[in-house]
Amino acid sequence: MAEFTHFNESGRARMVDVGAKDSTERVATAQATVLMQPETLEKIQRGKIAKGDVLAVAQVAGVLGAKKTPDLIPMCHPLLLTSVDISFKEESQPSRDGLCAVHILATVKTTGQTGVEMEALTAASVAALTIYDMCKAVDRGMSFHDVCLLSKSGGKSGTYIREGHGRAKE
Amino acid sequence: MAEFTHFNESGRARMVDVGAKDSTERVATAQATVLMQPETLEKIQRGKIAKGDVLAVAQVAGVLGAKKTPDLIPMCHPLLLTSVDISFKEESQPSRDGLCAVHILATVKTTGQTGVEMEALTAASVAALTIYDMCKAVDRGMSFHDVCLLSKSGGKSGTYIREGHGRAKE
Amino acid sequence: MAEFTHFNESGRARMVDVGAKDSTERVATAQATVLMQPETLEKIQRGKIAKGDVLAVAQVAGVLGAKKTPDLIPMCHPLLLTSVDISFKEESQPSRDGLCAVHILATVKTTGQTGVEMEALTAASVAALTIYDMCKAVDRGMSFHDVCLLSKSGGKSGTYIREGHGRAKE
Amino acid sequence: MAEFTHFNESGRARMVDVGAKDSTERVATAQATVLMQPETLEKIQRGKIAKGDVLAVAQVAGVLGAKKTPDLIPMCHPLLLTSVDISFKEESQPSRDGLCAVHILATVKTTGQTGVEMEALTAASVAALTIYDMCKAVDRGMSFHDVCLLSKSGGKSGTYIREGHGRAKE
Amino acid sequence: MAEFTHFNESGRARMVDVGAKDSTERVATAQATVLMQPETLEKIQRGKIAKGDVLAVAQVAGVLGAKKTPDLIPMCHPLLLTSVDISFKEESQPSRDGLCAVHILATVKTTGQTGVEMEALTAASVAALTIYDMCKAVDRGMSFHDVCLLSKSGGKSGTYIREGHGRAKE
Amino acid sequence: MAEFTHFNESGRARMVDVGAKDSTERVATAQATVLMQPETLEKIQRGKIAKGDVLAVAQVAGVLGAKKTPDLIPMCHPLLLTSVDISFKEESQPSRDGLCAVHILATVKTTGQTGVEMEALTAASVAALTIYDMCKAVDRGMSFHDVCLLSKSGGKSGTYIREGHGRAKE
Repeated sequence: MAEFTHFNESGRARMVDVGAKDSTERVATAQATVLMQPETLEKIQRGKIAKGDVLAVAQVAGVLGAKKTPDLIPMCHPLLLTSVDISFKEESQPSRDGLCAVHILATVKTTGQTGVEMEALTAASVAALTIYDMCKAVDRGMSFHDVCLLSKSGGKSGTYIREGHGRAKE
Repeated sequence: MAEFTHFNESGRARMVDVGAKDSTERVATAQATVLMQPETLEKIQRGKIAKGDVLAVAQVAGVLGAKKTPDLIPMCHPLLLTSVDISFKEESQPSRDGLCAVHILATVKTTGQTGVEMEALTAASVAALTIYDMCKAVDRGMSFHDVCLLSKSGGKSGTYIREGHGRAKE
Repeated sequence: MAEFTHFNESGRARMVDVGAKDSTERVATAQATVLMQPETLEKIQRGKIAKGDVLAVAQVAGVLGAKKTPDLIPMCHPLLLTSVDISFKEESQPSRDGLCAVHILATVKTTGQTGVEMEALTAASVAALTIYDMCKAVDRGMSFHDVCLLSKSGGKSGTYIREGHGRAKE
Repeated sequence: MAEFTHFNESGRARMVDVGAKDSTERVATAQATVLMQPETLEKIQRGKIAKGDVLAVAQVAGVLGAKKTPDLIPMCHPLLLTSVDISFKEESQPSRDGLCAVHILATVKTTGQTGVEMEALTAASVAALTIYDMCKAVDRGMSFHDVCLLSKSGGKSGTYIREGHGRAKE
Repeated sequence: MAEFTHFNESGRARMVDVGAKDSTERVATAQATVLMQPETLEKIQRGKIAKGDVLAVAQVAGVLGAKKTPDLIPMCHPLLLTSVDISFKEESQPSRDGLCAVHILATVKTTGQTGVEMEALTAASVAALTIYDMCKAVDRGMSFHDVCLLSKSGGKSGTYIREGHGRAKE
Repeated sequence: MAEFTHFNESGRARMVDVGAKDSTERVATAQATVLMQPETLEKIQRGKIAKGDVLAVAQVAGVLGAKKTPDLIPMCHPLLLTSVDISFKEESQPSRDGLCAVHILATVKTTGQTGVEMEALTAASVAALTIYDMCKAVDRGMSFHDVCLLSKSGGKSGTYIREGHGRAKE
């Protein structure tokens, strides 16, 4: 197993030198799942049409969040993101524990010397936090699960695809 | 069940008016769990002493993240945080699925007209994202679970304590 | 006519001292008008239902913009905004020059030692800029007019109401 | 007339993919006009010499504002701006409605995969807002007009020049 | 000698709890000295009149910098600054080592639960950095000295006045 | 001696046009020295092991600070930093004036059209400010000296190495 690269020889955190890496096209997709009461999901779904669109706000927050990644995550390199796209999949059928879900999928692209895994994970996390904020007055017990990287491509370490990911398979 | 408050009568998102609410002391605690390979946790634990302290970086990122909450979450009110504290608990014993964990606990306080739930959740999330970033070169499969509010107090809605929270109870 | 207060005795810009001012409830409302081709407005109106809601994005950007005011406007004091609300009024009937309009109305509140005029004007401006960005692929000639303060209340200088404001009255 | 490009197939806002576009030199120029009482303009002009330079502050704010564009406008791509220049033209002769004007001209350049129209418009808008802030103690009725793109070049859509722009021609 | 307060019992950095402290008026003044070649100072002084005012830009940057303090300094509390003022004193007579100086003085005020020492020091530092940036094309050897707190008042620890501060006394 | 380049022909500050400059690898190293009481340095050194690591927090703040440079320094160009590394050297032997020191060394790299001197100086300054913040409860008299550029390479103006720098040589 490799060593952490984000520390210098004194054991101090650094932004690791990527100056010698090739500038290639890089893509990463991350997900997050927000669990909630069935009534909360119903309100989100009805609101979209009539009273206010929770997911539209979460979408905008997620896109802005992706751009803030190097400001949030200390050792992240600044990158010129060329694309950020977020989609939601609603799971209206309650699971065994009686909860419904909104799945968030965030895909980020760049052409650069390092990957966009953190940008995709940050976009998904900020979208999840925004859903919580918009709905917390009705459901304080919401929680996030399976926040993870689904795939990434580009760069020297090549393509990664998560195997059998998350809650769905359980 | 109450309605969402973050929308105006045209169904447009707004920062809801808290001007008439009392300014009281408010506290919120949130958690997040980062699952990882046992080797990754070992490296984190060894690094603390010799090679570079992953959790020290995550701690700083989480505190800064709490302060960025109103910039990240569109409808959040700006607040004068009076305290942010983050702690980590390492679970070195692998679970049934062979994974170890770092539990993140973030507590935020303010005296103000609205609560700090989002600040606590954001602090925990940014700390988790930073752990991922610092360790991703050795373990791309890490994931976050049980990101949720554990408790909050202060304000008109009073005290909330999450019952039987998260993965621990499973 | 009074003197500018934002300069010190050396003629250097300063953030003027408001420490001795009372903390009172303050409200300000600003507007902006975005002129556009009738086809652009039609697309905005149709999109709301089917293809993507331009004004929902502008709304979120405007609320976030209000919170960024002290970071954008150098001599502005930081304030704890207690409410930000933005609404849109569409003018589908083309004016003499053949253009339709979206009117933006932004209302901001705080309890503090200085007013929120700049926050309201910034919210309206950022919402206008976002409408431009979302529609520029179809109408590069859009322009903003009548960006102005409609009213403000609270504070020592009292209430201000703009008389016969803007383009509408011409 | 083309369709909006900033929405995905679910009608959710996205940062559109520019990864396949050529990196070319791009320039954009935007303007804004601030209308004010003749006494206000006089104060600005006298202050430049003796009491404090309003336009110097607006200039710095506008340049910083251009750099904040992707943080303010949700679907804007981050870009490495290579040049930002802002100039002011004062119109001391009152118009029919008795108002004087400061015209703001902002030119932004980059070499990149998408244009800098939004950066130029944001620079002009933030400079206008700053003039308002610096002078609002003496003239609350100031307003902004003709905030628009004057020209842009570079990129696949080529050169755009606004025809007969703004108030001057009326 | 007291202990550091910015760490919790696990030795992790925290934003220390100031919730129980009184909200009082607090003032702090910090300074910084920028040493430079005599020709550089001459250019700054001439430029003020004709070619471009270096110190006006530094002033604006310093005021904005004060407001960014809690975003820059991890364990700093957010505060509602009520006043930021910066002044410059030019030392045209070269010292023994042949260098001239610009002295920066930054005074910051708030009414709050913790002091503004860091805001004053940050304002002075950012102003110094901006002077360097504006002049570096002609004098890369500039350096900053005697960046320190001159005085502070308010709060439980009372008034502090630095004794015999800095370069002047040498 | 050359002229300042950061002003346009009207004497207004601008972000100078670097669009025609070559994109080359650029490196810059800056330093800062924090003077403190011997007891303060002892606490920093002991804390590293047991009570809380001041320099770990300063390190993270410095790296984040480097990334914020174009937001702090008005006329600075945004750049894609490829590396940021900070190290500390402690001087436990008190100088003639009875003070110990922490020397901060910040090295920043990029491949771009302009240099990273300001990023290195900003990283060193923010790290120094953070050390002050973490220790100010025990030593309010700390001060920063010899904040300067040690070397830079890349770009048309070539390599610069500071001769006989700072306090050490006195």
